[in-house]
Amino acid sequence: MEFRIANRDDVPAVLELLADDVITRERGFGDVPVEVEPGIWDAFEAIAADPNNELIVAVEDGVVVGTCQLTYLPGLSRGGSWRMQVEAVRIHSGLRGNGLGAQMMRWTIERARDRGCRMVQLTSDTKRTAAHRFYERLGFTASHVGMKLTL
Amino acid sequence: MEFRIANRDDVPAVLELLADDVITRERGFGDVPVEVEPGIWDAFEAIAADPNNELIVAVEDGVVVGTCQLTYLPGLSRGGSWRMQVEAVRIHSGLRGNGLGAQMMRWTIERARDRGCRMVQLTSDTKRTAAHRFYERLGFTASHVGMKLTL
Repeated sequence: MEFRIANRDDVPAVLELLADDVITRERGFGDVPVEVEPGIWDAFEAIAADPNNELIVAVEDGVVVGTCQLTYLPGLSRGGSWRMQVEAVRIHSGLRGNGLGAQMMRWTIERARDRGCRMVQLTSDTKRTAAHRFYERLGFTASHVGMKLTL
Repeated sequence: MEFRIANRDDVPAVLELLADDVITRERGFGDVPVEVEPGIWDAFEAIAADPNNELIVAVEDGVVVGTCQLTYLPGLSRGGSWRMQVEAVRIHSGLRGNGLGAQMMRWTIERARDRGCRMVQLTSDTKRTAAHRFYERLGFTASHVGMKLTL
């Protein structure tokens, strides 16, 4: 498995991974494959242009099988330390339970260390109880409540 | 109450607000006032230089009485919509319960709308139950688990 920063050609595959998920579908995504709307290209360009944002793909035999988005957040807390925020973590639904997710997250945690981050953080829907156990096995603590306000 | 982007002169007051908190103190901050270490100036400069990061201060009669940090996150989900992440929300301990926090958060939510964000998100320590009710009154939903890994 190779992990690398996504390029434009990876965007349709990343979108399929994001949409191929029960909870995401409930939020209003349709069935896969998803058409790449102009707003999505704009978002991709914003991520690609920002040194503190990285869209990551996990690639096996030339196929995108996983993705996550990493954002590096500066902050005044803890002596001015940086933290990594992880969003939009997905592994292809046909390949879950094979350790690919753990491999991707361990790679992500190493990347946070390489960037000098003192913390890695993410939120996970309260309904994803298997995911919470998965993150706890990787060393995460469910210490916070994740609050969202849709505008 | 005035809300504005913090400048260098506000940094010591912001640090005092961050440190003046029971849970933060348990995490290893000492008593106030906190010395501004070089790493904190570096973090301030990183925030100030980044159009997607804003350190906010709430000022009353020339005194910094509240703070929060806003980060604008691009993402491929939800049609390529932006979200606002809120970190390090603090109101001066002597002024809590007077509606200043709600005023600051409503200003923050308006700012998210002005920037075209489709979501505002934050995490709050599970021990801060009063804060969770506060955010719920503002329209937030405690839909997620906030997971943290300290490196």
